[in-house]
Amino acid sequence: MTATVQRLDAHAPSLEPMLRLVAGDMDHVNAVIVDRMRSDIPLIPELAGHLIAGGGKRMRPMLTLASARLLGYEGARHHVLAAAVEFIHTATLLHDDVVDGSDLRRGKRTANIIWGNPASVLVGDFLFSRSFELMVEAESLKVLRILSNASAVIAEGEVNQLTAARRIDLPEERYLDIIDAKTAALFAAACRIAAVVAERPEADEAALDAYGRNLGIAFQLVDDAIDYVSDAGTMGKDAGDDFREGKMTLPVILALARGDETDRKFWKDAVEGRRASDADFAHAIDLVRKTRAVDDTLARARHYGQRAIDAIAGFPASKAKDAMVEAVAFAVARAY
Amino acid sequence: MTATVQRLDAHAPSLEPMLRLVAGDMDHVNAVIVDRMRSDIPLIPELAGHLIAGGGKRMRPMLTLASARLLGYEGARHHVLAAAVEFIHTATLLHDDVVDGSDLRRGKRTANIIWGNPASVLVGDFLFSRSFELMVEAESLKVLRILSNASAVIAEGEVNQLTAARRIDLPEERYLDIIDAKTAALFAAACRIAAVVAERPEADEAALDAYGRNLGIAFQLVDDAIDYVSDAGTMGKDAGDDFREGKMTLPVILALARGDETDRKFWKDAVEGRRASDADFAHAIDLVRKTRAVDDTLARARHYGQRAIDAIAGFPASKAKDAMVEAVAFAVARAY
Repeated sequence: MTATVQRLDAHAPSLEPMLRLVAGDMDHVNAVIVDRMRSDIPLIPELAGHLIAGGGKRMRPMLTLASARLLGYEGARHHVLAAAVEFIHTATLLHDDVVDGSDLRRGKRTANIIWGNPASVLVGDFLFSRSFELMVEAESLKVLRILSNASAVIAEGEVNQLTAARRIDLPEERYLDIIDAKTAALFAAACRIAAVVAERPEADEAALDAYGRNLGIAFQLVDDAIDYVSDAGTMGKDAGDDFREGKMTLPVILALARGDETDRKFWKDAVEGRRASDADFAHAIDLVRKTRAVDDTLARARHYGQRAIDAIAGFPASKAKDAMVEAVAFAVARAY
Repeated sequence: MTATVQRLDAHAPSLEPMLRLVAGDMDHVNAVIVDRMRSDIPLIPELAGHLIAGGGKRMRPMLTLASARLLGYEGARHHVLAAAVEFIHTATLLHDDVVDGSDLRRGKRTANIIWGNPASVLVGDFLFSRSFELMVEAESLKVLRILSNASAVIAEGEVNQLTAARRIDLPEERYLDIIDAKTAALFAAACRIAAVVAERPEADEAALDAYGRNLGIAFQLVDDAIDYVSDAGTMGKDAGDDFREGKMTLPVILALARGDETDRKFWKDAVEGRRASDADFAHAIDLVRKTRAVDDTLARARHYGQRAIDAIAGFPASKAKDAMVEAVAFAVARAY
């Protein structure tokens, strides 16, 4: 008998098994979300609903629910926490779009474009406050500790990214620190809190944290790669958005390091905002192809994806585990 | 023997007794504040320190400390909570200045002017997250419930104010709802949590909540009045700021209601942004004087001030009580 080693390339990956796994729980989470974004101030549910009802994948609450299944948790205490996680994420998106001046998200006009920056900032604050109210209802100081820490780390990561903006000299290590904070921390926390609710030992918490964290990094790397390969609409995100905003992402970092003097001059001009035309973007795509920068960004993503899968290798076989493995495979395959 | 009725006009009011009362505790709170705004990302302590170290009165943490003294609490658990309250307040100020596009606060250039809106939004988020981390450290779910609720109410109040912006038809009742949420809620929570930490009965919590809430309303009313009487610098705020931003505050609501057709036309033009010159502001001051709108805004402030004082009438006489009464008198006397 040989060991079963689960591999990323084992099958055509889909998010379906995870969606099916958590469908019943997600109905409860959605009910909490709809109920708790209510307010006497009509602008709040209107603006929040635009984003929350707007076709997001609910990836983070889904991870809380799937992790709870993996642990065989049968209760309902995690529903309100999964909603809190989604509120934190939504608040972050609202503020991100203000910070980046974005005009499109998930294929729709952003809230800041429709209602203005002030409304997006304040409704983000409301959702963030509401997420803590939800956590308090669950009465777990440990969960509150995990999620308040994740929130501080996210904000720190966003500030780190802001101070790195339009800086051509960003090393891969610092870029990884940034996405670890601004994306992976909430993935990790979303998974970890399931183990807290299920009252499992610290080792299970750590395993789920590692699963979420590595999946989060993989997820962000693929997002960054997609900017240089996809057509508008694949992710509800315009190809070239990051390029036009002069964002330092891994495809740029690799293409820059591997390019010649002329290429480096081009990237410097682009990152510092002097090259943002369609022709410039076409040239950028040429450069990332020539240097295999997108391929290798995706290879890095698969590395983290495999680590995510191995982090939960110790849990017994189950539908939940299969779904969690396949979700990783799906996440890293999105760019193809 | 006659009852001792404490009255607002009993003495020349000062904040000194309260400052002296809490000086030792405040050293501990300041140490927590300095320690917890640290970050590996230099922009965070730099930007946060600009506002936090920038000569604020620390009114809200001071109220937590004074309330604890009133209750005879001898412990130190409230220090970290008082710091959390100041962090919530600071996060709110950072976001407020972005929302209002303000350029001056406490006599200094605002963070959004120096570092830009994105940095102010994100550092605000960081401080807000950090405040919840501090609350978790204090391990009181009840305090977490009070402060997360206050935070949601503040954000709701800010959105309410935003949707009321430049609307000439704002009734006094809705204006009071707005300041109850955006200012008084945190004053109330700051006082109430002292009773929770001191493990006092619900009646004491409610009394301190009422003290803080009424003081907060009085405080905001006086702030709104000062905009129409003071010279730049009295509050580190320019006289006429609210006027030039077309803000509906109580002086405007009263002057509008009491004015004739010509006056009403003037106020409508001002609130809708068509009159914001120095000459317009001079005319506005004439109108609020003629209609006694500032005097009566201050009379309303004294009404709430007296209610604040009466809310703590049931507590035994003490230095803390005297200081809390005098702080109210000071707050409502600021405009003279």
